[in-house]
Amino acid sequence: MTEPAFQDLYPEPYAQCYGCGRLNEQGLQIKSRWEGDVSVCHYTPRPEHTAVPGYVYGGLLASLVDCHATGTAAAAATHAHGDPLRADTIRRFVTARLEVDYRAPTPLGVELELRARPVEVKGRKVVVDIELLAEGRVTVTGHAICVEAPSSLIDDG
Amino acid sequence: MTEPAFQDLYPEPYAQCYGCGRLNEQGLQIKSRWEGDVSVCHYTPRPEHTAVPGYVYGGLLASLVDCHATGTAAAAATHAHGDPLRADTIRRFVTARLEVDYRAPTPLGVELELRARPVEVKGRKVVVDIELLAEGRVTVTGHAICVEAPSSLIDDG
Repeated sequence: MTEPAFQDLYPEPYAQCYGCGRLNEQGLQIKSRWEGDVSVCHYTPRPEHTAVPGYVYGGLLASLVDCHATGTAAAAATHAHGDPLRADTIRRFVTARLEVDYRAPTPLGVELELRARPVEVKGRKVVVDIELLAEGRVTVTGHAICVEAPSSLIDDG
Repeated sequence: MTEPAFQDLYPEPYAQCYGCGRLNEQGLQIKSRWEGDVSVCHYTPRPEHTAVPGYVYGGLLASLVDCHATGTAAAAATHAHGDPLRADTIRRFVTARLEVDYRAPTPLGVELELRARPVEVKGRKVVVDIELLAEGRVTVTGHAICVEAPSSLIDDG
């Protein structure tokens, strides 16, 4: 049986996100799951997600890197606190800093794979390195500094 | 009379971009124009561009920073080559590296302003610093290394 994705465990206020919220009907609804110590996400860009014809828009690639990183941070921090990964235990992270390197044009029309590795898990901060692959080739790399979401973000929202 | 936006000058193959292409009906269609030596873009996120309720999705903010940076790079490089800014002279840039710092949550429901400054224009490379403001307050800063688009990006596309 397939494990639920990290994003399927988010409480409702965190499930509205355009990138990863399962309740955002117009959004990307990305899904991230562990494969060993790497978290993996697959996404096929829509035809309108174009840069120049034939290639994927860089802003979408940054969005995928961003949301896959925060999901991975949430799961890694939950494990680090000794908790199982469940809807009532999963923590929630936001991005403080995002770095994206576009190493080659990413072809449009194929499924992309993102592979993320938490490289630092410390207190309320998780740092994640991400590779994005198209047809088995790394076209984008990312580095995200994620911080646990303050409760004020929901209370005041 | 309002000057045309940088993006309104792009030749057709570059006018398909999800972020800034005037021919991408589902896209963001951002517009950038000079105000003195700073280029400015205004964009009001759609209701679905949410992170947690009440705040703008970070991937959209990265997308705005990205496209406003490449537009600014194109205009700055065109000027640096001594050319007027016209459809037959404007150069076209892509992002090689994007850095985005999320300094405060960005409120949803208001018009955002992006202000970009080319800090290095050298050969085929332009570096751009960007501030994104909501209600007069900087919530996001960005730094983009842009490179002139190789013609192969279109020829092979």
